[in-house]
Amino acid sequence: MTATSQTKLPMEQLRSILTTACHAVGCNDGNAASLVEATLSAHLLGPPAMGLPHFVDYLEAFKGGRIDGRVTPQVTRPLPAIISVDAKKGIAQAGFDLVFSSLVEQTRKTGLALFTQSNSYTAGELGYYVRRLAAEGFVALAATNGPPLMAVASGGQRVYCTNPLAFAAPGGPLGGQIVIDQASSATAFVKLIKAAAAGEAIPEGWAIDASGAPTTDAAAAVAGALLPFGGARGANIALMVELLAAGLSGANWSLDAGDFRSSDQSPAIGLTIIVLAPPPGFAARAAAQAQRLASLGVHIPGLRSANRLLHDEETTSVDAEALATIQAITAAAGRQTNFSNQRSARS
Amino acid sequence: MTATSQTKLPMEQLRSILTTACHAVGCNDGNAASLVEATLSAHLLGPPAMGLPHFVDYLEAFKGGRIDGRVTPQVTRPLPAIISVDAKKGIAQAGFDLVFSSLVEQTRKTGLALFTQSNSYTAGELGYYVRRLAAEGFVALAATNGPPLMAVASGGQRVYCTNPLAFAAPGGPLGGQIVIDQASSATAFVKLIKAAAAGEAIPEGWAIDASGAPTTDAAAAVAGALLPFGGARGANIALMVELLAAGLSGANWSLDAGDFRSSDQSPAIGLTIIVLAPPPGFAARAAAQAQRLASLGVHIPGLRSANRLLHDEETTSVDAEALATIQAITAAAGRQTNFSNQRSARS
Repeated sequence: MTATSQTKLPMEQLRSILTTACHAVGCNDGNAASLVEATLSAHLLGPPAMGLPHFVDYLEAFKGGRIDGRVTPQVTRPLPAIISVDAKKGIAQAGFDLVFSSLVEQTRKTGLALFTQSNSYTAGELGYYVRRLAAEGFVALAATNGPPLMAVASGGQRVYCTNPLAFAAPGGPLGGQIVIDQASSATAFVKLIKAAAAGEAIPEGWAIDASGAPTTDAAAAVAGALLPFGGARGANIALMVELLAAGLSGANWSLDAGDFRSSDQSPAIGLTIIVLAPPPGFAARAAAQAQRLASLGVHIPGLRSANRLLHDEETTSVDAEALATIQAITAAAGRQTNFSNQRSARS
Repeated sequence: MTATSQTKLPMEQLRSILTTACHAVGCNDGNAASLVEATLSAHLLGPPAMGLPHFVDYLEAFKGGRIDGRVTPQVTRPLPAIISVDAKKGIAQAGFDLVFSSLVEQTRKTGLALFTQSNSYTAGELGYYVRRLAAEGFVALAATNGPPLMAVASGGQRVYCTNPLAFAAPGGPLGGQIVIDQASSATAFVKLIKAAAAGEAIPEGWAIDASGAPTTDAAAAVAGALLPFGGARGANIALMVELLAAGLSGANWSLDAGDFRSSDQSPAIGLTIIVLAPPPGFAARAAAQAQRLASLGVHIPGLRSANRLLHDEETTSVDAEALATIQAITAAAGRQTNFSNQRSARS
């Protein structure tokens, strides 16, 4: 893997750069705010690739017609504790923001609530959603799907996306959280792409080639499919995620979702989040147990992220290449926008 | 593996044999009915070992003081859609039966409901709970823990039970269900015991020995610990199950639960079930998708079980050895009961 070059800038400046970029590619204020805050959260607390590098995918998707940046999600309440959103081919984060306070209120009132959303662009960093709910004191479980990237056995075709599952609970030490955010696949598709670009081999069990045969050739894997983690059990987790994310929301099954990088249509996928109010004392008890498990050598995911929340970062280190790409897209879109404004003024 | 000898008998006769056995070891009518119906369901639809062979564990646990067969679970409703049960050191199935209709009613009313239970004997076949909820038209997710059997890495000590996760949804073809019921461990502990008894080696990755080193020696594995399926991702699933099952319910963490086969105390573990009302048309849409996935070679778990529900089995094939053990325990306990009755009459 090649090291990515980093540059430092104030958080407020980064927020401003990202917001300007959203506006340049045709995103309205509300959608821009939703996407930028989720991107900053992923940048600070999630896997690095889900911050600025993935934001570039969003900008390209606005330009390519895979995201409608001007829509307002449509909310329905089929039953009191179910909040269902039609994302209207917009971003997934906008619908979540729109109903977040209702979701919190409903969970406090009845003890649990369900968020289902159909018809959105891919959900971005899934940990983002559950972290926000854990910060409200809840235990949360999220599932999402997307265009097909994973076969479930050698010889099979792609039938699922990476179908991640995220889980968060209050209870990290020092007021933090325990956050699990993991694909049902053996690895992320972006890792295949990176390994292919670097000409590196991939471990056995990660992927198959286009003929369905197991491969350690990264380029062959990109043309082929990811495999589930842990064999049949991981494949079952992927199926569960599919039924939760696309089944409960009424969204596209992964098999029917268009490519999030090249189609001119929204992948129109699903996002389902279960929010649970834990009993009094849960956070303290979970924190003590997490520390006890950690003392026995168990990795408690999310704790490092939680620690990063403890200080208010004034400046942040960002991926210089992704930042340059974002600024180039903004400049090019800005010129297009100005040009089209001029034409509008003339007509 | 050695084949188990089978014998056939009418379902009603099997029900009667199991009920008599429960009564003989000190179980009241309600607890006996709950345990027998769960055992018959596991026998017909679950993994064979979770039917009659596991029922023997229950009988021994009643006798050994690990289950109190005369208690009534205590129900509280901390919030409208949360039903919490203290199993009072009884069986897990009794609390579920006691609140089942409330759980169904609450889910229909608000869209979802949460069942949490603490202080019970190990939950038995976890698929049982979610199958019953899927039969009501719901999507359900269940998590349970138990005495520690699993380390999460080489060199580690046992920190979790097999920590299974079960999921069911209406939507198998022919009115059936999709049912996932799987351990977070690479295999079941009973498979280590069987392999050790047969002097067979176990695959790499299943277990470690007592020193924490990876092993393929089944006897060494029994003295050591199971490992999670799929490495770090499976370990995270086990942690999520632990927080759902023991955290949300307030039950013993796996680390604190006594052995379900040898302690004289209830393991006092947790069981948490999330019940979700799917949107109209879910079952038909899920069934069509399950058939489509199956046509692409994807194994859809639970479908074979669902097919077995299609005919009303008048006679059933049972594990002859387990049946003989159950009858021997019943006879011995019956003699003890008579003897103690005589003593009571004399005093």
